Amino acid sequence: MRTLPYQDLGFAKIDHHRPLRTGSPEVVMGKGKRPDQVAPIVASLSGRGHPVLVTKTDIATYEAVLVDTPSATYNDLAKAIVVAGDNPLPAREGLLVVTAGTSDLPIAEEASLTAGLIMGAPATRISDVGVAGLHRLIDCLPQIQSAKVLILVAGMEAALVSVVAGLVSVPVVAVPTSVGYGSSFEGLAALLGMLNSCAPGVAVVNIDNGFGAGYLAAQILRSGSGITE
Amino acid sequence: MRTLPYQDLGFAKIDHHRPLRTGSPEVVMGKGKRPDQVAPIVASLSGRGHPVLVTKTDIATYEAVLVDTPSATYNDLAKAIVVAGDNPLPAREGLLVVTAGTSDLPIAEEASLTAGLIMGAPATRISDVGVAGLHRLIDCLPQIQSAKVLILVAGMEAALVSVVAGLVSVPVVAVPTSVGYGSSFEGLAALLGMLNSCAPGVAVVNIDNGFGAGYLAAQILRSGSGITE
Amino acid sequence: MRTLPYQDLGFAKIDHHRPLRTGSPEVVMGKGKRPDQVAPIVASLSGRGHPVLVTKTDIATYEAVLVDTPSATYNDLAKAIVVAGDNPLPAREGLLVVTAGTSDLPIAEEASLTAGLIMGAPATRISDVGVAGLHRLIDCLPQIQSAKVLILVAGMEAALVSVVAGLVSVPVVAVPTSVGYGSSFEGLAALLGMLNSCAPGVAVVNIDNGFGAGYLAAQILRSGSGITE
Amino acid sequence: MRTLPYQDLGFAKIDHHRPLRTGSPEVVMGKGKRPDQVAPIVASLSGRGHPVLVTKTDIATYEAVLVDTPSATYNDLAKAIVVAGDNPLPAREGLLVVTAGTSDLPIAEEASLTAGLIMGAPATRISDVGVAGLHRLIDCLPQIQSAKVLILVAGMEAALVSVVAGLVSVPVVAVPTSVGYGSSFEGLAALLGMLNSCAPGVAVVNIDNGFGAGYLAAQILRSGSGITE
Amino acid sequence: MRTLPYQDLGFAKIDHHRPLRTGSPEVVMGKGKRPDQVAPIVASLSGRGHPVLVTKTDIATYEAVLVDTPSATYNDLAKAIVVAGDNPLPAREGLLVVTAGTSDLPIAEEASLTAGLIMGAPATRISDVGVAGLHRLIDCLPQIQSAKVLILVAGMEAALVSVVAGLVSVPVVAVPTSVGYGSSFEGLAALLGMLNSCAPGVAVVNIDNGFGAGYLAAQILRSGSGITE
Amino acid sequence: MRTLPYQDLGFAKIDHHRPLRTGSPEVVMGKGKRPDQVAPIVASLSGRGHPVLVTKTDIATYEAVLVDTPSATYNDLAKAIVVAGDNPLPAREGLLVVTAGTSDLPIAEEASLTAGLIMGAPATRISDVGVAGLHRLIDCLPQIQSAKVLILVAGMEAALVSVVAGLVSVPVVAVPTSVGYGSSFEGLAALLGMLNSCAPGVAVVNIDNGFGAGYLAAQILRSGSGITE
Amino acid sequence: MRTLPYQDLGFAKIDHHRPLRTGSPEVVMGKGKRPDQVAPIVASLSGRGHPVLVTKTDIATYEAVLVDTPSATYNDLAKAIVVAGDNPLPAREGLLVVTAGTSDLPIAEEASLTAGLIMGAPATRISDVGVAGLHRLIDCLPQIQSAKVLILVAGMEAALVSVVAGLVSVPVVAVPTSVGYGSSFEGLAALLGMLNSCAPGVAVVNIDNGFGAGYLAAQILRSGSGITE
Amino acid sequence: MRTLPYQDLGFAKIDHHRPLRTGSPEVVMGKGKRPDQVAPIVASLSGRGHPVLVTKTDIATYEAVLVDTPSATYNDLAKAIVVAGDNPLPAREGLLVVTAGTSDLPIAEEASLTAGLIMGAPATRISDVGVAGLHRLIDCLPQIQSAKVLILVAGMEAALVSVVAGLVSVPVVAVPTSVGYGSSFEGLAALLGMLNSCAPGVAVVNIDNGFGAGYLAAQILRSGSGITE
Repeated sequence: MRTLPYQDLGFAKIDHHRPLRTGSPEVVMGKGKRPDQVAPIVASLSGRGHPVLVTKTDIATYEAVLVDTPSATYNDLAKAIVVAGDNPLPAREGLLVVTAGTSDLPIAEEASLTAGLIMGAPATRISDVGVAGLHRLIDCLPQIQSAKVLILVAGMEAALVSVVAGLVSVPVVAVPTSVGYGSSFEGLAALLGMLNSCAPGVAVVNIDNGFGAGYLAAQILRSGSGITE
Repeated sequence: MRTLPYQDLGFAKIDHHRPLRTGSPEVVMGKGKRPDQVAPIVASLSGRGHPVLVTKTDIATYEAVLVDTPSATYNDLAKAIVVAGDNPLPAREGLLVVTAGTSDLPIAEEASLTAGLIMGAPATRISDVGVAGLHRLIDCLPQIQSAKVLILVAGMEAALVSVVAGLVSVPVVAVPTSVGYGSSFEGLAALLGMLNSCAPGVAVVNIDNGFGAGYLAAQILRSGSGITE
Repeated sequence: MRTLPYQDLGFAKIDHHRPLRTGSPEVVMGKGKRPDQVAPIVASLSGRGHPVLVTKTDIATYEAVLVDTPSATYNDLAKAIVVAGDNPLPAREGLLVVTAGTSDLPIAEEASLTAGLIMGAPATRISDVGVAGLHRLIDCLPQIQSAKVLILVAGMEAALVSVVAGLVSVPVVAVPTSVGYGSSFEGLAALLGMLNSCAPGVAVVNIDNGFGAGYLAAQILRSGSGITE
Repeated sequence: MRTLPYQDLGFAKIDHHRPLRTGSPEVVMGKGKRPDQVAPIVASLSGRGHPVLVTKTDIATYEAVLVDTPSATYNDLAKAIVVAGDNPLPAREGLLVVTAGTSDLPIAEEASLTAGLIMGAPATRISDVGVAGLHRLIDCLPQIQSAKVLILVAGMEAALVSVVAGLVSVPVVAVPTSVGYGSSFEGLAALLGMLNSCAPGVAVVNIDNGFGAGYLAAQILRSGSGITE
Repeated sequence: MRTLPYQDLGFAKIDHHRPLRTGSPEVVMGKGKRPDQVAPIVASLSGRGHPVLVTKTDIATYEAVLVDTPSATYNDLAKAIVVAGDNPLPAREGLLVVTAGTSDLPIAEEASLTAGLIMGAPATRISDVGVAGLHRLIDCLPQIQSAKVLILVAGMEAALVSVVAGLVSVPVVAVPTSVGYGSSFEGLAALLGMLNSCAPGVAVVNIDNGFGAGYLAAQILRSGSGITE
Repeated sequence: MRTLPYQDLGFAKIDHHRPLRTGSPEVVMGKGKRPDQVAPIVASLSGRGHPVLVTKTDIATYEAVLVDTPSATYNDLAKAIVVAGDNPLPAREGLLVVTAGTSDLPIAEEASLTAGLIMGAPATRISDVGVAGLHRLIDCLPQIQSAKVLILVAGMEAALVSVVAGLVSVPVVAVPTSVGYGSSFEGLAALLGMLNSCAPGVAVVNIDNGFGAGYLAAQILRSGSGITE
Repeated sequence: MRTLPYQDLGFAKIDHHRPLRTGSPEVVMGKGKRPDQVAPIVASLSGRGHPVLVTKTDIATYEAVLVDTPSATYNDLAKAIVVAGDNPLPAREGLLVVTAGTSDLPIAEEASLTAGLIMGAPATRISDVGVAGLHRLIDCLPQIQSAKVLILVAGMEAALVSVVAGLVSVPVVAVPTSVGYGSSFEGLAALLGMLNSCAPGVAVVNIDNGFGAGYLAAQILRSGSGITE
Repeated sequence: MRTLPYQDLGFAKIDHHRPLRTGSPEVVMGKGKRPDQVAPIVASLSGRGHPVLVTKTDIATYEAVLVDTPSATYNDLAKAIVVAGDNPLPAREGLLVVTAGTSDLPIAEEASLTAGLIMGAPATRISDVGVAGLHRLIDCLPQIQSAKVLILVAGMEAALVSVVAGLVSVPVVAVPTSVGYGSSFEGLAALLGMLNSCAPGVAVVNIDNGFGAGYLAAQILRSGSGITE
């Protein structure tokens, strides 16, 4: 194991072996990294032809990245930097991302970017079908029930997850968001709601972790397609 | 205010004025009180002809109560001691108690006892319609939508509350229960879920507080009937 | 249920059926939504003649709303955008909003706007009667005891709720606020205080949830008036 | 949806439609239910030929179940009641359950029972490969890397999850357990550790939720096998 | 400082200098100590003529104590072992202990024992004047307002403290109790309520810490009486 | 009680009876109040000749206050607005305020202002004697042991409180501060440390509540001086 | 790494390589393991001549162990099973274990057993020198200051740690215990106190983790003696 | 003890005796101190020839310090002010600082500064070897296993600590960082992970406490070198 390849930038060690080991390249969490750290990491990954995704970042970091990686683009909704990879991934169908409310969209976008760009599993989306208006959800049931894997993005009490998980036979990846106020305690209420869902088949990830949800959902799909890189 | 009547037992002061002030007699929380304290409190209340309810108590306390109050009965499901009052209350119709699961029944029973015995609002009940099987809930919708006030009793993630509150136009009294395990944290998940419901019109009470829910729901009904004692 | 009407804006699905189903139109939580999302939502709701309320928003969003909805006004105390509906609602009397302190006023205002504008239940108000000066509260008791439903808005330890709930026979809707510091933990102390009130008849909503309180209180009043839309 | 079949026992509504809707029958959580409630639920499910699993139960309940369902057996390690179904499910291969320590075995057993009995996905197991002795884990890597889906069961700090998830390309279902003491806070440390894993591809379920993990893992496998009942 | 006297029992060091330094002898917390540890500690303290109080103990420990200290008595309400001292302390008047409810009596008794036995400040008591029946409290106001120092013992939301502290000019020692259930979280709600009291002049001690309250109140009185041992 | 005097400003009710009832005038918490609310409250209190203290406020509010109350001054260390009263209070000696570290000074200043300005108990101060350098504390012991009441202000782990309380015979008022980082959790560590002090005689107030500490300490002193207004 | 030796019992994998890798044999946590699991683990370890320590266990487990390992003894204070190893370890001097109170002794004993039996670092002990009686501590200072490494065991607020750490130049291993009640929250107060110590040089371990403290302290000593196995 | 030297600046007491007592000079926490407080503290320490370190500070404070202490420099990564001491400390070899990710570097730098500047133990560093890419860590094992003491700096779930501690025979000082988001709860997940490590030999310090880790590690090394100042 000691001989697997990585690149040492001093402050970071780029794991170029990851695609071979886990089937997908490293994704960079922008939060807590300085622009002068993110820029060379992006250049290193992009230089090997990997697709690159930097999540939870900002415009200032994007501008630093642009100097060495002019093909990078910035996704303002997800607050993410994106660089396409050299080789298009084989597309896997069947991922549907559903949000409970409009405020959950940034996290849904992060999930879609991860699944589509990094994992080759482009997602379709249904927005704003929280259970306060159950008819909106039921109207979308045929689409929901035909997905091969679902990502549900919800803040507040996240009741959407239990309702949907009780109606489908495929795995549900549940992302709690920090949408809400007061006793939502920055997403804790949604997280606990999802973990205690009365319907089984729910895979929970961290609060606001769109990346993790997109990655996991695509991994499930990939198993489903018989492809395990 | 200083001259309102109460009876001083030394270790307790029985508030005999409460029915005049708030429209209903005192209810005794059994938890934390010794049998030799509960027995004279029950005797004092019952001696004035009030209906008596002791919640969260046990058989040993019931046996102590029986000595002076032989008409007392014990409700094993709710763990409650019950003594009928001298004067039947005028019955108010329209209260429906709904539980998400079978394990929520003890708290539902406490709510029903409170509403029926103490407040004159006998409840009907629907059990085990958690959202994991949404068709069970939807099958009961006509009954739910014809109630004048609802008590919803749910543990775990309590998603039932948001779904029902989005489908009715009457107030929903939501009781979180300690049903669940792990990150339900003894009812905290259900409590937070109810407080953060995406559907408005939800009145939350303490975890496992069937008494408070029955009281509040009957009070709402009483307003509705034009009667405010 | 699948055929009930709603309008799909892509990032949001406007629930135009809600007034029929629950008796009141959708209210928009401004927190977490961008101005370019709020503006078309307001336009959509207002275009159908519904009264519109956007809570927890800001001036920048208001300015975006004004472009398409020039009749919108901004309530600076509640941080809310308001658009009157086409048809005045029948007024229901009897709602009283009481605050423990001056700092609780923004949440009280949000409650009053919701009840008055959206639900047709205009509120009167008593401010700054926290129990540290009990005579101020007792001086207002006749007014408090003649209300048909009460909203109590309090931060810190929220003792006002238990005192008032012990003195009235009508339901009390209790709104904990994040007013306080240190171990108030952003409203947690007030929330727990209200949930554990020794006086029954208390309906608790989320911290700083003026909207939820106004909605619930009006719903209770509406039951009381015999009107259930 | 209203016409889907279920059986109403009064205190419980058995969801006989669930296998059609979600691909697997209802599982009964024993905790919080009385023997006289569990027994008829088991009889109802078993009477339709469904396999039955009652989790987190005890011997007294088992004895009550035996009266009407003599074919029931009791799994002492998992504290579960088991009744085989009429029709053997088609077996899906590829599920591996791994525990960090010996004390995690009861939850691993609950996961295996669920996957094998209810979902038709029998599991193999590796026990006691916590990262304190990394060589034990690395010795098992070939077996771990050839699984199609993994369930990792770990208490304390649950570091096993991050290490394994970084070494495989298939989804990892992570079950935090309440094994530990002091600041493990009944499994909270393990839960937070799993939610914050630096390696992606981790699906977290509730603390001690072996059932949920077995269900989810089998659902993922089922997608993988192209079978979606 | 190194030469101050204490007695070393090996597993405990009895602080015989404490009365000189702080004006009162050591009090023994029984919780967590074995009978064969408590017995010699009591014998050592009693042998010097100090009054002895062991709090939060049990009958088995009392029986072990009796062997060497036959004058010891057991207070069943407070779960305390008591041995009178050789020299009666000069009595200080003015301490009043008030409880919100009957279930708070054990902690009130612990406070009274500490103040009376150890500190020479015998207490009078008012029980069960929680604010749900404000007239009971107001009826006692003359007695409350004539005390020189108050101990208020309350669980649940502890609103009694804010009401009383707003009506008196003397210090209030507030003891939160673990009386309550659900979101009282074993006394946390009462503790936070007292710490956030809107009325100043409130000294808070630990949950269920009757000893600490009795000690502090007597210390305040002692300052008041001009006596500082 | 209903006839006690107060002044109604609409958004606030000034409690002019408080000095008679509790022995000291109202103090205004600036946090959460707008400048246009604070200014008339200050003017109202000052107009009756009361000394005025506004805590946790800012320069902008001070400037609004100056318009109507030109004698107001601003204490930058405590972030407080101060107006002297018409009648100097009789001075009570014996209050000592001690801080564990330099960062605790703002809260110590708030305590001193309250005690000196509002309660007539000017304080002396010892700063930066945290137990990490015990000799600094022991050097000050004679001064500490001659005080009649102590206020101890400490953040982080607040060990100063237990050490000092074990060395004195007078009451210790302990103020936890939010000084610290990480697992100090904004003062929670200090608060819990003080509540669990192994030395008795400790009166705890809210985190950063210098006002409450100054008020309580002066109240204790006042009892000691035989003056109870 | 894959070829390092361990023994597979099925439910447990005994890490016989650990002494070579980390310098000390495996220690068995008894909590959560059944007697029929502990017994063969002990037999396996003891059979190789390792000293064996089972912590947090009970008499029933001990009796099961005795069958195959008759040389095992039971330490009632620490609730531990002990088997001596074949080869006495070279003794390292300089470890001193200090407890704040008598109730902390079981955890101190666990620490001493670990250091002495497993690591070859026998400990001396000082008991009951909590800071409430500072002279007891100062009397022991010469002994404390001559230790080469200290283990401090304290519950409640754990102020002992900060005081001692400020007076010595050697590392302090701090063990919070669950001794206390109410807001000690089962050791949380002590844990936070130690983590926030104003004196540096403090190494914190888990609540009640005597084993971890003994292990770490001996490891530090071992570095000090120039021996690194 | 009372005669040990310190310098009283009024708002701070500089502990000039600390090097004699504990073997190292005082370090100044910048957080919560104003520039006009930090500047004279630095001047006082530096004037005695001590090396000076101010942690968690900012550029504005640095500029105030420069006026009187022109030799001060600012470390932008660690946000620290540094002044060299008059006498170089004897260097102790063997400290290795390891970070799990790039975002942990500021805390690692604070640890290195403390160990090197204040304690005479210069550190080498390995960055970004989190367990998600285990080969990066294993590649560094020879360097890790040859260190005499390790500091591990990790946020998120901090699994690095358990893995490394199981592979070395020297003490591991573990620093949780606030790196992460959502349910990392500002470092709580990492803190709990480290406290519950399944591998022993882990010394935990406060979240983001690089200073404490550097100090403790150097103290351990110093013991190892036979030097105890």
